Amino acid sequence: MLFANLPAPSEEAVAAVRARDAQLTKPPGALGRLEEIVEWLAAWQGVAEPAIARPLVAVYAGNHGVVAQGVSAFPASVTVQMVQNFMSGGAAINQICKAHDIGLKVYELALERPTQDFTLAPAMDEREAAATFAYGFEAIEGGVDLLAPGEMGIGNTTSAAAIYAALYGGPASRWTGRGTGVDEEGLARKNAAIDAALALHGPHLSDPLEILRRLGGREIAAMMGAITAARLNNVPVVLDGYVVCAAAALLHAMTPDAVAHCVAGHVSPEGGHREVLARMGKKPLLDLGMRLGEGSGAGLAIAIVKTALACHRDMATFESAGVSGKDA
Amino acid sequence: MLFANLPAPSEEAVAAVRARDAQLTKPPGALGRLEEIVEWLAAWQGVAEPAIARPLVAVYAGNHGVVAQGVSAFPASVTVQMVQNFMSGGAAINQICKAHDIGLKVYELALERPTQDFTLAPAMDEREAAATFAYGFEAIEGGVDLLAPGEMGIGNTTSAAAIYAALYGGPASRWTGRGTGVDEEGLARKNAAIDAALALHGPHLSDPLEILRRLGGREIAAMMGAITAARLNNVPVVLDGYVVCAAAALLHAMTPDAVAHCVAGHVSPEGGHREVLARMGKKPLLDLGMRLGEGSGAGLAIAIVKTALACHRDMATFESAGVSGKDA
Repeated sequence: MLFANLPAPSEEAVAAVRARDAQLTKPPGALGRLEEIVEWLAAWQGVAEPAIARPLVAVYAGNHGVVAQGVSAFPASVTVQMVQNFMSGGAAINQICKAHDIGLKVYELALERPTQDFTLAPAMDEREAAATFAYGFEAIEGGVDLLAPGEMGIGNTTSAAAIYAALYGGPASRWTGRGTGVDEEGLARKNAAIDAALALHGPHLSDPLEILRRLGGREIAAMMGAITAARLNNVPVVLDGYVVCAAAALLHAMTPDAVAHCVAGHVSPEGGHREVLARMGKKPLLDLGMRLGEGSGAGLAIAIVKTALACHRDMATFESAGVSGKDA
Repeated sequence: MLFANLPAPSEEAVAAVRARDAQLTKPPGALGRLEEIVEWLAAWQGVAEPAIARPLVAVYAGNHGVVAQGVSAFPASVTVQMVQNFMSGGAAINQICKAHDIGLKVYELALERPTQDFTLAPAMDEREAAATFAYGFEAIEGGVDLLAPGEMGIGNTTSAAAIYAALYGGPASRWTGRGTGVDEEGLARKNAAIDAALALHGPHLSDPLEILRRLGGREIAAMMGAITAARLNNVPVVLDGYVVCAAAALLHAMTPDAVAHCVAGHVSPEGGHREVLARMGKKPLLDLGMRLGEGSGAGLAIAIVKTALACHRDMATFESAGVSGKDA
């Protein structure tokens, strides 16, 4: 029902972008994916002259009961400490946003109250999952014209891996990675926790929203909401890495059209992220070995997106510059 | 002789960068190649706190006698027209440099006097090749701390392909692509021109400088000089695409250490660029299907390099931010 009336991308806007592109002082196609990026912006903003005046990285922070299973190299207290670090400007995402004039908002999601340990019970009840999903809609308020959801949450690569295993098939080890850097034993605990959860919740995992509720986390629910709000309001989305894509993959499983407005900002070396992107039909803009979260890969990709738009908007045409065209 | 006393990268600077990196508020290694980039800057600038205060894209423009063989989709007059476009701020590289606060200089290399058609004679005489190489040294004047050579020259993908064929083995078709967009017949003419040149100059192509003189162009000679000057003066270099790498590949053939200070900014879909990078042991930062030249791929890569440095320089440490460390 949520996805019953999704707005279509604007073919007229794409055609206008292509017409202008053909006049710019360069060989046709020579800017490669930079040209494709501008078409994507125009398609989803629905205008011939797309703009990035208010880009936003929205970082959602959540805590995870499954941390009790020893799945992370860092203590759960780091989640709230990193939120403080975001607030005081000390994290990687702060430097990335500052360097490229990108807005940054941080949403704390009841950090003092972790989700349930999903090896024992559903992570969230239905009401909380729905309310957190809805809360994500706030991300695009205030005229955001390009959105990159990001996340922070000790234990959340375990949750993301469980979601991928539920969506695409297990075992856990097909989808897990070292996260923040667990050792061999930690990785074994992570895999065991996920496999236990798959066994416990197995009969209920055919519905993406049920997967979210049982294996997800609050930041994943909120990011699903943020991506959905963007889809309904003509805001293009740049996807970050492994955990953000768990939110996107759940939406994609509901209907692929729900994430048609998303580009993949980067591919993470974590777990099966490359395969997840391929399953969603997304080709990453960047492949730099980043596996930090925080929206950091997407933020860096926004630098590329902004540059693509600047080229399209400000380059001279063959006529204005007095440059001879192809095969002249 | 030129390369007899190449300065070594600073291991102390790299060690200092690694020590600081370990304290930053992120899991070890989580910024992937962004971390490697800062080590590279420190190694070649020779300081623990590298800086990018004066980055420069230096675009060299040259004209090519081989254009008479019908190898390009654009007329030779476009080279000087594009130089005008650079001067008036209308090209892609102008927008990229403006967006990321990168200096831009354009060097015209006797455009009114194209090189000789290398299907008939050496492109340059020895004196001209040497003088143009030396002229490239100017690129780093004025305190440039990060250099990206770029180029413009109708016909120069033909020259670059001929250089690759001479260095790594033919036939021409192994190395050629559509350049600015030649059609099937144009590509056949391009391959035929290169194969004719290889036959004509074959006995003289064991020496990289002789390859430069016979098959190269002035912009390729000047870029070899610019890259060499950077190597001798502790200036890291970001390589652009297909044509710039012909200059780097010639230096690499003289001694691999001559290009040890270079990172590959991007990989072009043109001809065998991916293989050329692999032969030089370079892994590109970007893979966005760009094939424009002008230093555009390198310019965009500098945006990544600057961001990597900003993260390293300005992130909080675990101690300063009160964040618990790994396995705490």
